[in-house]
Amino acid sequence: MNNFKAVVEGIKPLDKKAMEEAKVRMDNLIKPIGSLGRLEDIAIQLAGITGRVKNKIGKKCTIVMSADNGVMDEGVSAAPQIVTLIQTGNMFKEICGINVLSKVAGADIRVVDIGINGDLDCPGLIQRKIRKGTSNMAKGPAMSRDEAIKAIEVGMEVTDQLVKEGYNLLGTGEMGIGNTSTSSAMLMCYTGCTAEVAVGKGAGLTEEDFTKKKRIIEQAIRVNNPDPHDPIDVLAKVGGFDIAGLVGCFLAAAYHRVPIVIDGFISGIAALTAYKLNPMVKGYLIPSHASAEPGYDTMIKEIGLAPIFHLRMRLGEGTGCPLAFNVIEGAIAVINNMATFEEGEIASETLVDIREE
Amino acid sequence: MNNFKAVVEGIKPLDKKAMEEAKVRMDNLIKPIGSLGRLEDIAIQLAGITGRVKNKIGKKCTIVMSADNGVMDEGVSAAPQIVTLIQTGNMFKEICGINVLSKVAGADIRVVDIGINGDLDCPGLIQRKIRKGTSNMAKGPAMSRDEAIKAIEVGMEVTDQLVKEGYNLLGTGEMGIGNTSTSSAMLMCYTGCTAEVAVGKGAGLTEEDFTKKKRIIEQAIRVNNPDPHDPIDVLAKVGGFDIAGLVGCFLAAAYHRVPIVIDGFISGIAALTAYKLNPMVKGYLIPSHASAEPGYDTMIKEIGLAPIFHLRMRLGEGTGCPLAFNVIEGAIAVINNMATFEEGEIASETLVDIREE
Repeated sequence: MNNFKAVVEGIKPLDKKAMEEAKVRMDNLIKPIGSLGRLEDIAIQLAGITGRVKNKIGKKCTIVMSADNGVMDEGVSAAPQIVTLIQTGNMFKEICGINVLSKVAGADIRVVDIGINGDLDCPGLIQRKIRKGTSNMAKGPAMSRDEAIKAIEVGMEVTDQLVKEGYNLLGTGEMGIGNTSTSSAMLMCYTGCTAEVAVGKGAGLTEEDFTKKKRIIEQAIRVNNPDPHDPIDVLAKVGGFDIAGLVGCFLAAAYHRVPIVIDGFISGIAALTAYKLNPMVKGYLIPSHASAEPGYDTMIKEIGLAPIFHLRMRLGEGTGCPLAFNVIEGAIAVINNMATFEEGEIASETLVDIREE
Repeated sequence: MNNFKAVVEGIKPLDKKAMEEAKVRMDNLIKPIGSLGRLEDIAIQLAGITGRVKNKIGKKCTIVMSADNGVMDEGVSAAPQIVTLIQTGNMFKEICGINVLSKVAGADIRVVDIGINGDLDCPGLIQRKIRKGTSNMAKGPAMSRDEAIKAIEVGMEVTDQLVKEGYNLLGTGEMGIGNTSTSSAMLMCYTGCTAEVAVGKGAGLTEEDFTKKKRIIEQAIRVNNPDPHDPIDVLAKVGGFDIAGLVGCFLAAAYHRVPIVIDGFISGIAALTAYKLNPMVKGYLIPSHASAEPGYDTMIKEIGLAPIFHLRMRLGEGTGCPLAFNVIEGAIAVINNMATFEEGEIASETLVDIREE
């Protein structure tokens, strides 16, 4: 089914009936109505996704897309490109942030080489390289339209496989030096916001390098002139293989009716792209943390979501996902295991009162 | 050691040397410096609490203080007083929010009757009733100064016992209809903020009842005129037994050098009171969610902290604590299990670069 068009067009809306049933149960649990806030929202959303009021998380996995970005030729990042390859390799030594946080959450990771500029020989690495890094977007399109679709389909295939293996809660992450530049460029195309709003300097960029990064991103948009109403055009011209792969993950998760967590800024740009391809994707998205990248706020508002965590994180790799998995499991425990007023033996005369507290 | 004065005066500062060592390790982990944000801060704080760079959470527990409030005579809550007793009983059926969320976190709860207006016969309930509910603060002091100290010492004893049993991560919760009124009154005393800032209407109060609630709280402050510089005076005159018990938990946790999580508004007011009794308490506090109660922001800023979660929760019971426990375990996994640059075999020439990204 890894046909881009078939998946985009095959995404269905949430199951409103299941959501209404979930809302009725939620409002009858022994607590004031709405007092568990977004835990209630998430539980109801999951009902809409699966069609069942009570859900159970089986296996959960964060997908990490690794790729290099040609725009690195312009010196937009203080870190050298080789770090993409080294850190992707380190994920197989289980020593990275995403490894240790996934372990706490009882979650797995799946790492995809979708465009690293170099070869890695790690058992378990999913080898689906489109090309050894994109072209330099400051000079021309980062990739062709065909490559963009191909990269999206890689994300779809990886997601299909996970769903087949019984994973029913997914997360999204990336490793790719230079990918805040591509993400910022895409955000500027989609929203028309300025580089001042969309571009961050990280911890290490000097004021001078930061100014250069903003000018390079503006140049990339000027040179390529992507059509903001054509998400594939935006993705191909100023995006990256990592982002494209994640777009496929979001689309395929929605297609398979599996909830999928947004990590930070970069995976969020992929989520926004998937949402623009089919707005029904939104129903399957769960945000995690508010990235410290300055473009995050604009991005998440463009989708119409709000973050759960405020942790000033900006590592990427998908590190927000295992933290969010825990909150989602909490939401499921609330709707599955809390008692209703009847079960809690709260006398009928007090029933209305407590619910209104 | 349950002597109020001995505990308050026995609290020691965080171990700066261990925190510096933890910071050095944190900055050497394979990630840009500071990129795991508050996970890094928490891991370093834990080092300061325990004196060890690497920590391990053994058993974790949320302490729930249940008590009734005499101010209920004034009709400040839509829920009847009996709900305190019913819901406390329901915690032993393991059907409340705090039960199901604690189970997800692998955490225990300990429930204390510190002043319920009625008798509960539940095996496991810690029976330390000061009195069957406080007096009506709108007419006079909620409790005597001696009772306030006694209730604080109950919280200290419960905490001592948990520490003895090997619990090394604690949370705080409460069940007590009317306790947003007492918490708001205390916040107004401490900060001088108005009822408009400190008082919430919950989901159920009509505009008329909400206005009445604010006027009753203002009346309680006027009638009792607590000394804002004497936290025990504030607590005794316009607080509650539940809040007093939690003050003892915060103080004893700091005394025993055990991290302790603030749930929402009410446990936060207890934390603020403990902090005012000894500002070194702050080093042992970990916030969880931003309560939907309007006074929460003012309270948490008064301590100088910021919430981790934005979930629009306002249930109480300690429900934010098990969610925060998971984040804390993530922070520990980061410092314990991520590799340093040397271990991650990132060549020395790229070492500086990636750290500055």
